[in-house]
Amino acid sequence: MDRFGSHRSIEPRAVLPQQANRLDTSLPLSEDEILIDVERLNIDSASWTQIRKSCEGEADAMRARIMEIVAERGKMQNPVTGSGGMLLGTVAEIGSHRTEPTPGTRIATLVSLALTPLELDEIVALDPNSEQVTVTGRAILFGSGVYAEMPADLPEDAALGALDVCGAPAWMAHLAQPEMKVVILGAGGKSGMLAGAQAARSVGPEGRVLGLCWPEDTIEAAKEAGAEAVPCDCTDPIAVMEAVAEAFEGELADLVFVCTNVPGCEGGAILGCSDEGRVVFFSMATSFSAAALTAEGLGKSCEMTIGNGFVPGHAKLALDLLRSEPRLLERFSQ
Amino acid sequence: MDRFGSHRSIEPRAVLPQQANRLDTSLPLSEDEILIDVERLNIDSASWTQIRKSCEGEADAMRARIMEIVAERGKMQNPVTGSGGMLLGTVAEIGSHRTEPTPGTRIATLVSLALTPLELDEIVALDPNSEQVTVTGRAILFGSGVYAEMPADLPEDAALGALDVCGAPAWMAHLAQPEMKVVILGAGGKSGMLAGAQAARSVGPEGRVLGLCWPEDTIEAAKEAGAEAVPCDCTDPIAVMEAVAEAFEGELADLVFVCTNVPGCEGGAILGCSDEGRVVFFSMATSFSAAALTAEGLGKSCEMTIGNGFVPGHAKLALDLLRSEPRLLERFSQ
Repeated sequence: MDRFGSHRSIEPRAVLPQQANRLDTSLPLSEDEILIDVERLNIDSASWTQIRKSCEGEADAMRARIMEIVAERGKMQNPVTGSGGMLLGTVAEIGSHRTEPTPGTRIATLVSLALTPLELDEIVALDPNSEQVTVTGRAILFGSGVYAEMPADLPEDAALGALDVCGAPAWMAHLAQPEMKVVILGAGGKSGMLAGAQAARSVGPEGRVLGLCWPEDTIEAAKEAGAEAVPCDCTDPIAVMEAVAEAFEGELADLVFVCTNVPGCEGGAILGCSDEGRVVFFSMATSFSAAALTAEGLGKSCEMTIGNGFVPGHAKLALDLLRSEPRLLERFSQ
Repeated sequence: MDRFGSHRSIEPRAVLPQQANRLDTSLPLSEDEILIDVERLNIDSASWTQIRKSCEGEADAMRARIMEIVAERGKMQNPVTGSGGMLLGTVAEIGSHRTEPTPGTRIATLVSLALTPLELDEIVALDPNSEQVTVTGRAILFGSGVYAEMPADLPEDAALGALDVCGAPAWMAHLAQPEMKVVILGAGGKSGMLAGAQAARSVGPEGRVLGLCWPEDTIEAAKEAGAEAVPCDCTDPIAVMEAVAEAFEGELADLVFVCTNVPGCEGGAILGCSDEGRVVFFSMATSFSAAALTAEGLGKSCEMTIGNGFVPGHAKLALDLLRSEPRLLERFSQ
């Protein structure tokens, strides 16, 4: 089953690469793999927040930590959050059974760094305020690995940021219906903004899109994406419930998207959702047991969905949102 | 918001009790609480498996570990798995705003021990082979806490075991449709058996219910519940996919229920599910990030649901399954 990459799992052997503690990054390529010269990593927001915090926001310590993780694991999977991110690079070589992408093509991987074999030579530039890290190194994409060619008409930073979270607006397009009341926790972050912009289109003029934002200075971004934005600490369950009930005149949400990047947002999402509604968790800081046991403990029968980063057509949908929303594009280009 | 029990969270203060490291178990009761004289704990299967393993199956060590957790936390929430279980006892006292349940009523709590204030005097009996532990102690149920009166017509052990996992068959009843191909991972355990029995009813004669069982000696139980049972190590993703494809002549499942009690079952569940299908995770050993990133990494667009232990009517549905399936009742009475 080379297609899934389990042949590169060293410890334990033969498990799926996401589960492995360590991956084999050695060459030659197997027949359906792609070798990528890596230029930039886009670290997952939950992972970045954790690393920045544990390094007290100090750039050199963050560089050292990232180099250490990749050297130990053969992949950039944060051992605390379990999450990764994605990368941008140029196709260097393709396996013998492949005909595309052509070497020289610039691509972004749409599978997590948590399962992507990676070797880093060095970190060229790192800014604690940006999740995008400039590096030199090599990565391998498996036969089953999804990728997107970088679009020629958008700034690379913006495209990369949107592709990283493109599952969120795609699921919003799938689930949000006209007239629904939608709530987005963390509406001023990247996934929150794209989810908000899509929600505003999907629910139409009779629907509502409420964006809860923390810290308060993310409110402007959420508004520009198209949400009614209010400040709310999403780790405070009662505050979330009250903010939702106040905005919706005593009613709760039909659909809640959790796009935050800190732990402890399960309770608020569940309390803000109606019993017949659905919560979709896109935050990689979500705890499975906290979500399951909190809903049960509160006697709430809402449906709870694990945000799956893959939906067919997700890359195009996210890039098209940027193309059609100039203010969103500007935010993503900052 | 006393109704949700956050007034009993000591550390951190005022969070939902599931999130708290420590709960306040002191009296008097607040106005909508229930005080229960506890007779038996039914420890969650993932938690029990973890404790038994860490204590090398030694009963005295397991007793000590359970007493220690409850003394430290004011609740029986396993710090490793985050999960709890439920309890059986007699109503001792009710808060001033309540009219039921009447003191003296025997009830089982249907909210997790992970959020239930609990004090133990002693562990009266513990058998490493049974998740049911006989104790003396006191617990408090909040205003929002769901409970069931113990049925007079069923053996208590059997009813308690079924009530502990009653969310699984209730969600099966909600999601399984006629003619569907359903797969249950861990079909020979308690939640797996009830889910299997319900699935067999829901999919009808044109549907299929495949139960994957490990260790092999659980096959008989899965068959008695109504599944076509085969042995399969559900932590081996490729083995799961192959078992499903073989049983369904090359096709994958419309609906996968994960009812196992060990970590590492996300990959198999996802690989066994069709792209348009749905995986429902009822195992408390599920990792959120593993599920999300594995699906994305494999390019699988299946929907993934966090098993919510609460659905209206779930207790009655589970007990009615026992009442109508004598062989299931016998298994649950063992």
